[in-house]
Amino acid sequence: MTPFLQFVLVAAIILFAAKVAGYVSTRLGQPSVLGELLIGLLLGPSLLDLIHLHIFTDVHLGEFVYEIGELGVLILMFLAGLELHIRDFVRNTRVSFFSGSLGVIVPVALGAGVGLLAQMPLDSALFLGLTLGATSVSISAQTLMELNVLRSRVGLGLLGAAVFDDILVILFLSIFLALGSGGLTPTTVLPVVLRMVLFLALSMGFGLWILPWLSRRVAVLPVSQAALSFAIVIMLVYGLAAEVVGGMAAITGTFLAGLMFARTPLKAQIENGLRALGYGFFIPIFFVNVGLAVDLHLIRVETIWVMVGVILVAIVGKILGAGLGARLSGYSWLEALQLGIGMVSRGEVGLIVATVGLDNGWLSREIFPAIVTMVLVTTLITPPLLRATFARKQEASKPTEVMTNPPEAPVETLESKS
Amino acid sequence: MTPFLQFVLVAAIILFAAKVAGYVSTRLGQPSVLGELLIGLLLGPSLLDLIHLHIFTDVHLGEFVYEIGELGVLILMFLAGLELHIRDFVRNTRVSFFSGSLGVIVPVALGAGVGLLAQMPLDSALFLGLTLGATSVSISAQTLMELNVLRSRVGLGLLGAAVFDDILVILFLSIFLALGSGGLTPTTVLPVVLRMVLFLALSMGFGLWILPWLSRRVAVLPVSQAALSFAIVIMLVYGLAAEVVGGMAAITGTFLAGLMFARTPLKAQIENGLRALGYGFFIPIFFVNVGLAVDLHLIRVETIWVMVGVILVAIVGKILGAGLGARLSGYSWLEALQLGIGMVSRGEVGLIVATVGLDNGWLSREIFPAIVTMVLVTTLITPPLLRATFARKQEASKPTEVMTNPPEAPVETLESKS
Repeated sequence: MTPFLQFVLVAAIILFAAKVAGYVSTRLGQPSVLGELLIGLLLGPSLLDLIHLHIFTDVHLGEFVYEIGELGVLILMFLAGLELHIRDFVRNTRVSFFSGSLGVIVPVALGAGVGLLAQMPLDSALFLGLTLGATSVSISAQTLMELNVLRSRVGLGLLGAAVFDDILVILFLSIFLALGSGGLTPTTVLPVVLRMVLFLALSMGFGLWILPWLSRRVAVLPVSQAALSFAIVIMLVYGLAAEVVGGMAAITGTFLAGLMFARTPLKAQIENGLRALGYGFFIPIFFVNVGLAVDLHLIRVETIWVMVGVILVAIVGKILGAGLGARLSGYSWLEALQLGIGMVSRGEVGLIVATVGLDNGWLSREIFPAIVTMVLVTTLITPPLLRATFARKQEASKPTEVMTNPPEAPVETLESKS
Repeated sequence: MTPFLQFVLVAAIILFAAKVAGYVSTRLGQPSVLGELLIGLLLGPSLLDLIHLHIFTDVHLGEFVYEIGELGVLILMFLAGLELHIRDFVRNTRVSFFSGSLGVIVPVALGAGVGLLAQMPLDSALFLGLTLGATSVSISAQTLMELNVLRSRVGLGLLGAAVFDDILVILFLSIFLALGSGGLTPTTVLPVVLRMVLFLALSMGFGLWILPWLSRRVAVLPVSQAALSFAIVIMLVYGLAAEVVGGMAAITGTFLAGLMFARTPLKAQIENGLRALGYGFFIPIFFVNVGLAVDLHLIRVETIWVMVGVILVAIVGKILGAGLGARLSGYSWLEALQLGIGMVSRGEVGLIVATVGLDNGWLSREIFPAIVTMVLVTTLITPPLLRATFARKQEASKPTEVMTNPPEAPVETLESKS
């Protein structure tokens, strides 16, 4: 088979498996994303190792599936932004700041404690803590969309806190790198801050003033799917600019792009098309690929206690820190717990930080599988935990909503309520 | 930039350029596909060589863009099938057979004549003829969809003839390969025929009897975009099966899949989603990539006369052969001309055949650029020629239709007329 036909076969298998697993998952009362992550784990190197079966001779196949999946998570975060009003978001600055900051600081401190207990030197212990700081909000955003609560106080606080989390972790990482390469001076960290400010200023300025004007012009163009292609191009540019200009995560950029499009007349035109593009093809491939990237064989018995410690601290630290931040901002205990749980999932950001630590000698090869397992466990437990804490509240008021509302159309429901 | 970010940048540039070029093209009264092909030519190695700019360090970038584009042409042919009724198609078997067969035989004969005039040995001359036989119907299908005439007699005859064309060229190619490797016996060609029959029987059987039953079950599943993902999976499997089981082109498979889905209750559910997926992202990348693959620097002055001969024979032979077939089946002279022109575009199938000839020594390196140029010229002239022959008829009855109907919604118009 040609490389393209190999990709066609893999894509068909992954898409089919994802939808079946998502269906089984919702039948069992769980968010579909949990099933998609688990089926990815089964198809990955831990069990079947689909991509390395002998019929797949193309060595770039895994890379191609990864890039399709990455497009999926860009679309996912764009859709999350598209469901919000920037107004709601500005109202939640306080909780975003407190939950975002404490949600980084507490796990970093506790993680460093685990490192010191395991007799690591101080800088390695601190870096281990830092890998526990980074939240990856995509899994939670998907779960909250499925539960129709993305635009609740908890959902809005969570998304805002994730942006602060991203900013803070990158700042800490740049401080670390500066310390490693000679010393911490204003000239080593200042550029990092300036790039972030520059990206945020440019993207907000363009989005608030130029985008609405452009959108009105694109809306009337006699070109097939002009609005949708325009939105995709802007989304890709925001994602790219977040990384290249801001030094931040691409998903932070596409989330902002979605937030900006929510204010334009194009919103209604692009929403269905992006859901089709996202949930029909790209996003399931992303979730399955998260599982595909995990190899459970890497878990070592020798380091099992450090691993358990890292995982516990990752979960408890995040819930404590982010939850405390929410409580300080006037959220109820239940809301604070929900927001804290929503921040638990780590995903790829934690792995990227860990890789930097490995390359610079702060983390050892022995500790790495513990971090991979931590990312896996926190990612897998977030959807069912979120579901559980929201179910209690939902079952009191409208018990069947989660089952009868298709996950791709939560906004309509929420807007008719508000 | 990481390989993924490089792809994000290239995809944003290609998508933006495609839509702008398509818009300019329709403004000038041409099908948008012409603009997309031409902008691809400008972005390709002939002028800008976008993918090899120094910022793009990922060596697989071109391959990735190619694979995204290939998904686009699979979706394009699926959509073409989805717009038809299998009934219409069966009624046109006669014209499909005559136009498909004569549309291969006449250019093969004329092409062999050019080869003999250029003093090539008989087998090389015949093989040169064969490279002129293969039609690539995707460009014409897109143009006819834009002109809202895909379901006219000409459109139906064209699509049917393209299937026969595909079958015949593969048969001739296998005969050639059998002759090359020792001799033509029934045992060398029979497997080729059997594989085609097997694929067609399996795909029609599944599509006519099992797919409608499956579709009714999928239609009620509480999974996000279940119908769309299901259609994509079936489409991919049909495309794969066409190549792997039938030895035919993947687009013949996805066209059949679309034809089968047109009879199911899912048609209405999947149509908008597939248009969004196709025209919003994948299909423009396909058309631009056709241009990206062409390098005009390969044209050599020494072989310019052979090149001119090949191009002339490719155009005239196809129009004569396919048109004669249509005329024999009772089409009017204008319809026969339109169908003949619709078969002119060669695309990748011609290049694939030419590569086989190169690898087996029937074609020389000197003749290859002539064939590439032939593919380019036939692909570029097909949309404006089709537009011109249809415009005369359309302008008499409804002069503004082409401009006011968005190209992505032709079926509704056609169905309300019939």
